[in-house]
Formats: sequence, structure tokens, C-alpha cells
Amino acid sequence: MHRILSGIQPSGSLHIGHLVGALDNFALLQGRGEAFYMIADWHALTSKYENVGEIWPATLELTATYLAAGLDPAQSTLFVQSLVKEHAELHLLFSMMTPLSWLERVPTYKEKLQNAAADLGSYGFLGYPLLQTADIVLYKAHKVPVGEDQLFHLELAREVVRRFHFLYQCEVFPEPEAVLTKTPKVPGLDGRKMSKSYGNCIYLRDTNTEILEKCTRQMASDPARVRKTDPGNPDICPVMDFHKLFSDEATVQMVDTECRRAGIGCFDCKKRVAEAITRRIEPVREKIEAHLAQPAHLEDVLRDGSARARTVAAATLAEVREAMKMPAL
Amino acid sequence: MHRILSGIQPSGSLHIGHLVGALDNFALLQGRGEAFYMIADWHALTSKYENVGEIWPATLELTATYLAAGLDPAQSTLFVQSLVKEHAELHLLFSMMTPLSWLERVPTYKEKLQNAAADLGSYGFLGYPLLQTADIVLYKAHKVPVGEDQLFHLELAREVVRRFHFLYQCEVFPEPEAVLTKTPKVPGLDGRKMSKSYGNCIYLRDTNTEILEKCTRQMASDPARVRKTDPGNPDICPVMDFHKLFSDEATVQMVDTECRRAGIGCFDCKKRVAEAITRRIEPVREKIEAHLAQPAHLEDVLRDGSARARTVAAATLAEVREAMKMPAL
Repeated sequence: MHRILSGIQPSGSLHIGHLVGALDNFALLQGRGEAFYMIADWHALTSKYENVGEIWPATLELTATYLAAGLDPAQSTLFVQSLVKEHAELHLLFSMMTPLSWLERVPTYKEKLQNAAADLGSYGFLGYPLLQTADIVLYKAHKVPVGEDQLFHLELAREVVRRFHFLYQCEVFPEPEAVLTKTPKVPGLDGRKMSKSYGNCIYLRDTNTEILEKCTRQMASDPARVRKTDPGNPDICPVMDFHKLFSDEATVQMVDTECRRAGIGCFDCKKRVAEAITRRIEPVREKIEAHLAQPAHLEDVLRDGSARARTVAAATLAEVREAMKMPAL
Repeated sequence: MHRILSGIQPSGSLHIGHLVGALDNFALLQGRGEAFYMIADWHALTSKYENVGEIWPATLELTATYLAAGLDPAQSTLFVQSLVKEHAELHLLFSMMTPLSWLERVPTYKEKLQNAAADLGSYGFLGYPLLQTADIVLYKAHKVPVGEDQLFHLELAREVVRRFHFLYQCEVFPEPEAVLTKTPKVPGLDGRKMSKSYGNCIYLRDTNTEILEKCTRQMASDPARVRKTDPGNPDICPVMDFHKLFSDEATVQMVDTECRRAGIGCFDCKKRVAEAITRRIEPVREKIEAHLAQPAHLEDVLRDGSARARTVAAATLAEVREAMKMPAL
């Protein structure tokens, strides 16, 4: 049976991009293999090392969100990275056999260094993709549901695996493959990628009023359509992207037709998007809040899942240590 | 009571430089504090990742050498780094809060990159001093017996400790201090620093014949003294450095006087050095060989010591995790 691993950093509230871009995919895949979904709190340190107090609350919120999005602890192993020390050990072992240049050439590395508001110039931030490699192969995962920006990291993981097998004449790990989500990237309210650092998100915990206000007041639309009587062009209007993601087929058709002949104004159109997003988000939000009201239950889920993860990770690491001829006393 | 930590990589046989430069110091200090002496097998991976089969035999040999040099497992904790996973975890945590530039400016880093025959361009080799920091502070060591080339690493360790205390508003670690050995650096047979990579070593397991041949045939002496009848200058003769380290006071005096008036030839002088080194080494070598003949006993020593080390390391790491607000489920 295929193993699946993915994870999210507990570094802030999740937005609708996470839901349709990652979580829906996680839920879909859990029936098709043995799934491990990680809360990557050590990764969160790369940006949150100065604000570590935010990580545990975000961990609980992410756990509640995993459950609300349909991840079932009986089917999937939900675990906390820092509760499985083997991630740190395998990362260290890989660090000894991975050329520095492999990490320096990771495209997301220089990109993030330039864009980020936080200080990301740490040694660990450079080694981030190597910790990801350890995360994945510790569970011998075959499939890794990720976004497109992670494809290079998966390629690196495969290179590290091949190098490990070559150096130690063994076949411990499968070469992990990306599973890209079928959903196109969710745009932010301003048309750029939805991202907390851009302040252009609709969060899963936003109230219905907040969703309505963000859609009607902040969402970008076709700038060529100035007056309500101007015909619009849905092909280039960002609002249409949201309709396609969240509205039903009939609404998408109607909006497309009416926009072109100025039969519907932008405000109305955005109100309908807000309604569609609300319909999708509201039940998820309610579940998140219900789970968050029971933190002891969330801790139980993480305790159990992390224990299960440790068993698998320890077994893999025993093989790694044997291949590398490290002692077992 | 003061804690002391030091360690040696199991990456090959030890030479007389290790004995008078490090091991004698280790033995001396074990009565003055609670001493932890590590076998740094993860560090050995920086140069041995392609030859991992050499590490475990070298670990046993180093253990035998620790015991032969007078380290007492009842007094000192002798342990294997890779058997204490907390080293990897603390290294990872430190990596997230340590600027890359702190590691790039370590003098030994660029030096070794240029000199080494082995491929040292790995990510882990860059992070080597950070792993050392974790090694030291995991045991809350106050004193670290090291050579002069390690002083910058100790300074880095103190900087990391201060940064940790500042970021997490705590005082978990003492700031570790170097204890420099009183013995001057042992020269190699060619006058450069004694080092396996220069092929200029007298090893602790060399036979008496090998010692004699290395001293009389390979040891450099004052090049200005061409004939036996030329008076020599012991102030600049490398042989004199060995006399000062290994011969008794009377012999040093005699050789100094006779060399200056051509009363003793270089061959005779080197023979006497060989005798002095042999007197010092022979009992150590015999003990090493006796211990190596009982590998099960060596494993017991390492198993017990590593269990003790784990207890201390786990307690420190619990404090670290609490300071960093990592979960304890």
C-alpha cells in the first residue's frame, strides 16, 4: 500500500487557499494509501524562532483544521514533527552527505531570502529542504501532495535518496513523487498568490461578515470596467477565478453571461462570490471552533498520532543506521 | 561541581600528539569535576561519510585508548555521540536561530576546505561547530579541554548560548570556557603540526621498532648541522622539542650541552628520543591492545556511559523545549 506524507507549518491561521489547495487533497488521498500528515513545528522555527509562543496555539488550530477538513485520525496519522526526534537525527545524517551547493541552488531559498519580512538568514533556513527530505523518507512515503513551488524540493529529496543508496549500497527509501493538486492556485484578494505576508487572505476562521466585507471591498476586479453599465470581461477578471473555485456551475454560467452584457454589477457579483465562499467555509469554521473548544481531545489526537509516527520513524532509522554502520548498543 | 566535556572523532588511530595534547589533560581533569568524554562519531561523518565502515572499529580503538590513557568509567562518562539523539535535536534547534554568517566566518572552516584531501563541501561540515556547541551545552559543561585551534569554536558556543538566553529569556546553559593544555603543540616528524593527513605521525600503536625507525629516519633536525663534527643548535632543532616532551630533565640538559659542542651526533640524539617516546608509549600501547582484545567489555563501557549521558542530555533538552515552548505530550 502506498505511503503518503505531507505537512503544514503551524505558523498562523489557515486560509481558503490551504483548504482547496492542500487540505481537500489530503482528505481525498487518505483513502488511497497510508497517510501521514505532519504539523511541522520545527519548520515553523525558521520564521518563528523569535516568536515561539505562537507555535503551540497554531499547532492546536492546525490540528482542529485538519480534523475539520475531514482528516480522520483513525485513517491518517496526524503528528507533531518535534515529537519525533528521528526527524532531527536523519536530517543530521543527511547533512553530512549532502553538498552545500545542492541547498544553495534551491530556487525558493534565494526567493524567500529576498521577499521575507522576517530574518531568514539562519543556518537552519538553508537546510530546510533537507529537513523536508528527512520528513518524507522517514515514513518511506511514495507520494507527497504539494504545491508547485515544492517541486524542486521533491527533486532534491530524490537526489538525496539516490546519493544515500549509492554511498551505502542499499535501497532503504522509495524515491518520493509529488502529487500536484488539481485545483489551480487560489489568487489573493489583490490578484497575487494568497499569502499571509501579502495581507490578501480570506481565512478559514473569518466570520461571514468578514468574508462579505473582504470580497466586496478588497477583491480586485477587471479594472477596465469602470461603470456598472460597461460590459465586463470575465476572462481577465479575478472575481471569476473565485466563482470557478467556489460557485456552482449555474452561477458561473450566469455571471459569465451577465458580466459580458453588463447585466450584473461588480458589487453584486462579488456578493455572490462571498456567499459561495461562505457556504464552503462556514461548516469548516464551525467544526474548527468546536474542536478548538476541546483542546484535551486535540492533544490526545496528537499524542496518539505522534506515537504511531515514532514507531514507523524509529524502524526506518534503524535501517539507516545499519546501512551507515552506526552502532546499536 | 564543575562539568567537563571533551571528545575526539573516531576517524583513525591516535598519535602521541593526542596523548600529550589531549588525553593526559582529560585524565588530569577527571578528578576535578564531573567529566564527560565523547566519541564523536557523527562528527567523524564529515570526513568519513564515504567510508563509514571505518568508524565503528575506530570507536572501539578510541575507547580502548581512553581507558589506556587513564580515563576511568567509574569517574568519567565515556559515551558515543550517535547513541544520544539529543545531540541531533539540539543541533537542529540551534540551527534555526544561528545566523549562517556566524558559521561561514569560522576560520577553521575555510582552512579545512582548502587543505583537506576529502570532500568537505557538505552542509553538515559547515554546521560542524554548531553540532559542537550542542555537544558541549547539552551537558551544561563549564570547562572544555581543547587545543588552540578550537578557541574560535568555543567563542561561537558562547555566542549561541547568549543568543539562546536572550531570545528565550532564560538561563539554561553555563557559558563554556576552554581549558588549554599546558603542553605545547607536538610537532610532526617533518616539523609541521603532527597530523594524519601529513603522514608525519608517531601512533600510539606503533611498535618499538617503528618508533625507532620513524625517529632516526624521518625526524627532521637542524638542517645547518651537516656533519657530526659540526656543532648544532638545539634552540632551532625539532628533535629538541621531542626531548623536552618525552625525555627526563638530565637527558634534556645533556643533549643540549653535547649538541652545541658536537659531542653527540644527530643519529644518537634521535635514538635517545625514540627510547624516551617508547618508554612513554609502550605501557599505553600494551593497555590499548589488552582492551582491544576484549571488545565486549568496551561495548559495555560505551553502553553504560551512553545511557548515563542520555539521562543528562534528556534533562537539559526538556529545559530547552520548555524555554522554546515546544510541546511535551
